[in-house]
Amino acid sequence: MTTQPSDVEIAQAHPLKPITEIAATAGIPDAALIPYGTTKAKVDITALQDVEPAEGKIVLVTGVSPTPAGEGKSTVLIGLADAFSQLGERTVVALREPSQGPVMGIKGGAAGGGYSQIVPMEDINLHFTGDFHAISAATNTLASIIDNHIHQGNDLNIDPRKVTWQRCIDVNDRALRNVVTGLGGPTHGVPAETGFTITAASEIMAILCLATSLKDLKKRLGDITIGFTYDGEPVTARQLQAEGALTALMRDALNPNLVQTLGGTPAFVHGGPFANIAHGCNTLLATQTAQKFGDVVLTEAGFGADLGGEKFMDIKSRFGGLDVAGAVVVATIRSQKYNGGQAREDLTTENLEALKAGVINLERHVENIRKFGVKPVVALNLFWSDTQAERDFMREWAEGFGVALAECSVWSDGGAGALDLAQTVRDNFVKGESKQLYDPAAGIEASIETIAHELYRASSVEYGPKAKKDLQYIKDNGWEEFPVVISKTQYSFSDDPTALGAPMGHTLHVRELLPRTGAGFIVALTGDVMTMPGLPKEPAANRIDVTQDGTISGLF
Amino acid sequence: MTTQPSDVEIAQAHPLKPITEIAATAGIPDAALIPYGTTKAKVDITALQDVEPAEGKIVLVTGVSPTPAGEGKSTVLIGLADAFSQLGERTVVALREPSQGPVMGIKGGAAGGGYSQIVPMEDINLHFTGDFHAISAATNTLASIIDNHIHQGNDLNIDPRKVTWQRCIDVNDRALRNVVTGLGGPTHGVPAETGFTITAASEIMAILCLATSLKDLKKRLGDITIGFTYDGEPVTARQLQAEGALTALMRDALNPNLVQTLGGTPAFVHGGPFANIAHGCNTLLATQTAQKFGDVVLTEAGFGADLGGEKFMDIKSRFGGLDVAGAVVVATIRSQKYNGGQAREDLTTENLEALKAGVINLERHVENIRKFGVKPVVALNLFWSDTQAERDFMREWAEGFGVALAECSVWSDGGAGALDLAQTVRDNFVKGESKQLYDPAAGIEASIETIAHELYRASSVEYGPKAKKDLQYIKDNGWEEFPVVISKTQYSFSDDPTALGAPMGHTLHVRELLPRTGAGFIVALTGDVMTMPGLPKEPAANRIDVTQDGTISGLF
Repeated sequence: MTTQPSDVEIAQAHPLKPITEIAATAGIPDAALIPYGTTKAKVDITALQDVEPAEGKIVLVTGVSPTPAGEGKSTVLIGLADAFSQLGERTVVALREPSQGPVMGIKGGAAGGGYSQIVPMEDINLHFTGDFHAISAATNTLASIIDNHIHQGNDLNIDPRKVTWQRCIDVNDRALRNVVTGLGGPTHGVPAETGFTITAASEIMAILCLATSLKDLKKRLGDITIGFTYDGEPVTARQLQAEGALTALMRDALNPNLVQTLGGTPAFVHGGPFANIAHGCNTLLATQTAQKFGDVVLTEAGFGADLGGEKFMDIKSRFGGLDVAGAVVVATIRSQKYNGGQAREDLTTENLEALKAGVINLERHVENIRKFGVKPVVALNLFWSDTQAERDFMREWAEGFGVALAECSVWSDGGAGALDLAQTVRDNFVKGESKQLYDPAAGIEASIETIAHELYRASSVEYGPKAKKDLQYIKDNGWEEFPVVISKTQYSFSDDPTALGAPMGHTLHVRELLPRTGAGFIVALTGDVMTMPGLPKEPAANRIDVTQDGTISGLF
Repeated sequence: MTTQPSDVEIAQAHPLKPITEIAATAGIPDAALIPYGTTKAKVDITALQDVEPAEGKIVLVTGVSPTPAGEGKSTVLIGLADAFSQLGERTVVALREPSQGPVMGIKGGAAGGGYSQIVPMEDINLHFTGDFHAISAATNTLASIIDNHIHQGNDLNIDPRKVTWQRCIDVNDRALRNVVTGLGGPTHGVPAETGFTITAASEIMAILCLATSLKDLKKRLGDITIGFTYDGEPVTARQLQAEGALTALMRDALNPNLVQTLGGTPAFVHGGPFANIAHGCNTLLATQTAQKFGDVVLTEAGFGADLGGEKFMDIKSRFGGLDVAGAVVVATIRSQKYNGGQAREDLTTENLEALKAGVINLERHVENIRKFGVKPVVALNLFWSDTQAERDFMREWAEGFGVALAECSVWSDGGAGALDLAQTVRDNFVKGESKQLYDPAAGIEASIETIAHELYRASSVEYGPKAKKDLQYIKDNGWEEFPVVISKTQYSFSDDPTALGAPMGHTLHVRELLPRTGAGFIVALTGDVMTMPGLPKEPAANRIDVTQDGTISGLF
């Protein structure tokens, strides 16, 4: 077993370069830099409008179906970026911001790991530059404006039972999933059954991530549907005159955040939506800004290639007109053994049979990615328990399956552990070939069917009673040509989290369709969606501490 | 009537100095500066430990009993600071941060006004450096840890009905005053009747404002009482192992924020607690830091001298060992006419009778301030409708009453409008004479009685049934020697908001006593306390907007 210092210890022992130096090396003009301390900055997008072209080659880092063991997707991305830098490529990272809720819950940190981290990791994991707080403030200000409108006479005739807008908070708090507000009598508002989501699952987070400019941000904020009138008509934030105030609250958050990797590669860390209820990628603006200053841009999508990967291609790339040059599918031997039926507690034991049985999960993801016109490379992220026989099997499998595979050891070796991988990725770049899977103009049902058949390999799609009603009002309101965000368990290609491997011929059950008219997509709920996590019995918060000189410990 | 551009227009037209220049002029070492953009910074208190002495003369700016017309206390303070700077004094301001909730509600901004503002006012009014968000995050993280503890087996035997810890949010949202959480069945937590306060009214805000160091902050966070066990024993945040994580969340917020006035005077703007549920002053650390770099330090306390002023002397100065050199009581002719019975809508009409009748309010505040050993100066903040006869009356009254009075016109003239006032304040400095009104060692009842008799001029104090029970458990738990924060209407010296002027011989009714063991005081509730405001029918948010280039309008 490999032992090394904890993530926060590695990060704190590392001498950071001033962010002005990182920016200067990347060619980011001084005038565009808004410092937050000496090692973080926001980059003013209005000061970059004349910087052209934005032609960096985009490499999408995605993964196999996630398993409880963890695959280290962000860690591989960061190590790979440092490897590209070591190869002399002008490289820039674009990643999501960690959510503070899970940092206090199970995760304890989400800024890579080991010797492949973005730093300053304590700041990135806690508050950072305040983007999540701005989203919570905007979301909750809108909620207060809605409830106040109803309380003060309800000129818009809003049906209090049909307010779909929920408050949000960046805390794992299961007790806020279902709440009743407005109790205590007439002076304290109108009682309502509602709930809080975690900020990463909010529509304003999705809006931030898809907005192309301040003007576009304001338009999308105004387009939010907050609920319905007694007559069933949708009501927007614009009708409540809220979009100006919401834009003011979100103005600074729209600027991408610049930090660095342990290898000194510039990293834009901006936006952090869930990959089920939204598209699960960092902001479009961060990726496009990275393309202005990097010849190679490494960017990530949440969960497996069927969820975040699909949405990266079908939502983010569509909205932003992105050309994707390469894709990395991060896999581990452990994850494929798990998909092949090996129990979680036995994953460190060699089991070639399970590996052989489970690698169909990886195969399916590779096949799927190819449907988007790019040439996927498998990054085999090594773990101390992987045996030579297992590694040999994976190499042989890749040759047989006809996909490029490179091992990497970024957690213990940083960029040096991904040099092979970087070269393999570079050898598989394409240009002008990436594409979307479906055309939303064909209508929401056709979009869902295409994804279900082509990627999930379902044989049919079934709409529950609620979904059928939703479909009707989506058509009535002219929303049927929005692209679709399918909210599905990340553990399976099907909507059954226990169906591991590569299930086929199943039925996709659509329970509900949620219009996200501000973000510009329709969410199709299949199975249960967690929009507000809870804390575990022993929260990571218990271990977090601060010394008298301000050093934070317990993040990992 | 005077007309001039709006506050935000004045602020935006003003060329700001780089914050590095403001800091350099003040003598703040470069190494201590943590920039947030180019015009805001935090000052790292750990880098200032060797900067001595902290001997700036503290001038407390307080006021008469507030009236609906507004007295302009912060505006006078800022103009007065710029006047001191113009007189060649090394001057530093220490002020509270605005709360975003009221900015979106009635206020539309709270960073001074006219030509006496702190800038950048848009940033200060919206998010600023994230201190309020950090407090909300810490407060709500603790709430989730409490509910999670109960949900996961409740080892500490916490009685869910007796959890006193509430969540907070920096939004005016009446619908969150009374809520039921934890609904939806056993996997979604334990149902509880609770509520949200606005962040400014939270205990962690009070803790931030009274903490003397990072170590002290951590101790206070651990000392928070979150509720009681089934056996009636208090439970602390420390018992939930939460104080490390809370300290990590609050670490950066503890550093004072540096900005500038329109006149270029350095201003620490840090902390923003309510003056009823807490002490209502900016942070102790900001005031002490200001004392290191200014010979004159102007600092404010919320509401009238009976509320914020008393707490500044009895809580903040006691905790920090502050010597107060001077006090300014801000008054307007309008406010005294209102206290003399003139209707709000007629305040711009000359009425010497009402002025004569109402000036007893100012008299009482002046007398009260003297009991703390300082020599108050009356700042008569002029309004366009004040007549010469009314102004003459005020001068004659001051001579007769034996108090120094100076007119000022800071809203329209900035620092130039307060030169007289500055000289008058300087002429009335004392040294080593300021003192507290009571000794908490005599017990909570004695402390309340002293304040009620000496300042409010009540003839008796009555405890309601709940307060009597509270008194008992306060004694049982050894909390009776904490100082007291009396929560009382700001409109009257009594607990009846309609008793204007200078009531005497009334009874102070104590309804409830709330232990704030982290902040280190007991709150005595008299009358209703608003810990969560609502939005008005036409919220200020409706008027706030952002242009495509990012300029914010609608703040005032």
